[in-house]
Amino acid sequence: MKRTLAQEAAKKIGKEVIIKGWVHTVRSHGKIAFTDILDRSGLIQVVGSDSTAEKITSLSQQDAVEIKGIVKERGERYINEDLATGKIEIEASEINIIANSETVPFDMGGKDLTLELPTLLDHRALTLKHPKVQMIFKIQASLADEFREAAKKLNCTEIFVPTIAAGATEGGAEVFKVDYYGHEAFMTQSPQLYKQIMVGVFERVFTIAKAYRAEPSVTTRHLAEATQMDIEIGFIESFEELLDALEFVGCEMIKNTSEKYPEILDAFGIEKPLISSAVPRLTLREAQDIVTKRTGRDLSGELDLNPDDEKEICDWAKEEKNSDFVTITHFPTKKRAFYTMPDSKDPEYSLSYDLLFRGLEILSGSQRINDYSQLVDAMKTKDVDPKNFGTYLMAFKFGMPPEGGFSFGLERLTMKLLGLGNVREASLFPRDMERVDERFSKIQKEEDQ
Amino acid sequence: MKRTLAQEAAKKIGKEVIIKGWVHTVRSHGKIAFTDILDRSGLIQVVGSDSTAEKITSLSQQDAVEIKGIVKERGERYINEDLATGKIEIEASEINIIANSETVPFDMGGKDLTLELPTLLDHRALTLKHPKVQMIFKIQASLADEFREAAKKLNCTEIFVPTIAAGATEGGAEVFKVDYYGHEAFMTQSPQLYKQIMVGVFERVFTIAKAYRAEPSVTTRHLAEATQMDIEIGFIESFEELLDALEFVGCEMIKNTSEKYPEILDAFGIEKPLISSAVPRLTLREAQDIVTKRTGRDLSGELDLNPDDEKEICDWAKEEKNSDFVTITHFPTKKRAFYTMPDSKDPEYSLSYDLLFRGLEILSGSQRINDYSQLVDAMKTKDVDPKNFGTYLMAFKFGMPPEGGFSFGLERLTMKLLGLGNVREASLFPRDMERVDERFSKIQKEEDQ
Repeated sequence: MKRTLAQEAAKKIGKEVIIKGWVHTVRSHGKIAFTDILDRSGLIQVVGSDSTAEKITSLSQQDAVEIKGIVKERGERYINEDLATGKIEIEASEINIIANSETVPFDMGGKDLTLELPTLLDHRALTLKHPKVQMIFKIQASLADEFREAAKKLNCTEIFVPTIAAGATEGGAEVFKVDYYGHEAFMTQSPQLYKQIMVGVFERVFTIAKAYRAEPSVTTRHLAEATQMDIEIGFIESFEELLDALEFVGCEMIKNTSEKYPEILDAFGIEKPLISSAVPRLTLREAQDIVTKRTGRDLSGELDLNPDDEKEICDWAKEEKNSDFVTITHFPTKKRAFYTMPDSKDPEYSLSYDLLFRGLEILSGSQRINDYSQLVDAMKTKDVDPKNFGTYLMAFKFGMPPEGGFSFGLERLTMKLLGLGNVREASLFPRDMERVDERFSKIQKEEDQ
Repeated sequence: MKRTLAQEAAKKIGKEVIIKGWVHTVRSHGKIAFTDILDRSGLIQVVGSDSTAEKITSLSQQDAVEIKGIVKERGERYINEDLATGKIEIEASEINIIANSETVPFDMGGKDLTLELPTLLDHRALTLKHPKVQMIFKIQASLADEFREAAKKLNCTEIFVPTIAAGATEGGAEVFKVDYYGHEAFMTQSPQLYKQIMVGVFERVFTIAKAYRAEPSVTTRHLAEATQMDIEIGFIESFEELLDALEFVGCEMIKNTSEKYPEILDAFGIEKPLISSAVPRLTLREAQDIVTKRTGRDLSGELDLNPDDEKEICDWAKEEKNSDFVTITHFPTKKRAFYTMPDSKDPEYSLSYDLLFRGLEILSGSQRINDYSQLVDAMKTKDVDPKNFGTYLMAFKFGMPPEGGFSFGLERLTMKLLGLGNVREASLFPRDMERVDERFSKIQKEEDQ
């Protein structure tokens, strides 16, 4: 008999089925016992009596099982509205363990998995199996998919770019060094330089790529290895064309994912995102003026928005413009990477932008310098050695049109959409200075013994 | 006026348009001159007379230009059947250079770009702009897209896995070491271990991920940094279910991509792939017997197929089974990675497989050991230290069902489908022991000066 998924069982009332999955909970009442089984489609309740009740009672959480039984409608008073399969259950006739589980170190059968972050990560191969944790990564998969769909609608071609490079993308010390056949090389801090080269090839490109930052501290929003979703567009007619593109992609991802998984947003207590027909746009200075008016904080002389400012300006956008998004433009040239195009009308400020969503920056980008000499000068100003960027610079020698682009952090976007407290919760296997899967302190301790 | 793409112009005969793109060729005949302009949709011919002819004559290959003009039908005898836009041309009224190009070091205007591989790679930011080179990466983007579509049809969830790990995936010396906050870490040789963990979470997963191998030599089929397309499937009923899945994905990718881009296959002189309704399946020993019968080569004692054997068995599949694919199963257990499941009927051989396409292995995989103790024993047998794989092994403590999976090399598949001679041609920015974009020997020489 072919396996039936939990979600398909409702269509087979009265029929015999085989389901497979993991034991989520066991509830024994003597001669009758229940187990909730989790498979890739969701949870389903199984009931056993007498010998199958005994068998159910002997099951452990996370045992992988195969159960044969009849699909039955539950009585009116036993319907579980919280469960997609809550109107049915399987009356078991045969229960086989496919793979035994060790005793789990904490209850995996609750609606939530309330563990401290270090415990959650120390047991990652187990904790990821919890339905509430799984939801985070279903949202993540959807965001990535919707990103690609939106990029394709913008006529972008997908590219696969390298992560080992001869120079550090944006300069600075926060890079991981690789021993590359005896030569020194670096893990790229972003796909930035390669996607720019590819504008000279396909005009419009996108990539989902790894970005490596040797962050010297542990914060709630940074990962040592993150996933970036990048777009770059050439032959632009104006700076505004870039803003249109980034807002289109940002809104598509959030809107379509929210509509696809309303039950996950519900489970995390998240309201449906407010997406207005036009995302409000402010220059940094306009945004600072609004924050000052609303809070009295003096931001003159500030070169960026701090996290409190970002929250405040998002509150403004929600209250005044009915939007959970707000685009901030024209950050100071000296605060942005070397390839950022200064605003010709006021070169101290640049044709750059961030997209904020519910109080957090989820996207960053700019129009780029597309003239070779201006680019080399900009590198030198920022102490980036052109010598390490030969292939990158070559692209600007052969007719690079006006262009720009942007980049979303996939984990950060996932975190923000679900209101998680730490970006590590939105990374399957987060890398930071304290751990690569296992904590260094733990490994060290074992080695010392 | 809004820009018109080359491919859209045929719908605007008699109308004034603006096109943008790069100068591909210039042909001057005094008072009349022609230029072919390349944009992201393809090539289109522009004609100028008198002052616009002079302007065209002054253009250089790879200048980025904006041209205003009227779309005209060409006279019958001027139709160019080789060009999708060959029935029309733009009669230019205004030509503006958006970005000047330096003089190109070799002709970029031919149908082919016949350069030696080192030259092709030394000028990568330029050579990628050639239409014939671009085609390679359009095929690559399509293969990746079709991979994802096929994976989704198999009900797989997309996952994003790390590339920095505490242990070398498959043991061995061919790993890149990273200085990770003062700790030693490695670039993953494949997403293998993480996708296996995720079977315990989503049952069925896919990922497109980087794989790093410090290949100690330069060959035509290996890259130091490659792109892998991976699938892993749990709760399998049989080994054959894995074969069905891999053949489905392999055939879907090749078939759909070939049908989407017949003109690219034509340009590379490639015949439409032969995809039979059932991919022929042979055990390694059966395949060896066939090779021996066809060639007289004695393969007794050989533990694998060498490149000549792979070609021979593919010739057999084509001649006898009308298929460009052939699946080879049951490789010797000692030749495969530690996680490979031995065949219980004959443990010297394993439940492993390769998929061959036109003489080359494009996929590898196996059913996996899903029992914790058996897995730890297998690691020890292969001199892999379980201590570095704590998170991986944890997944097998909590009910890992029977599972297996497979992995395609994206660059290798692209190379093979287009009949390229070297996998470097199928990587935008190939990494090998001789270069990271620029050749080390060249950098060294400059430093010595």
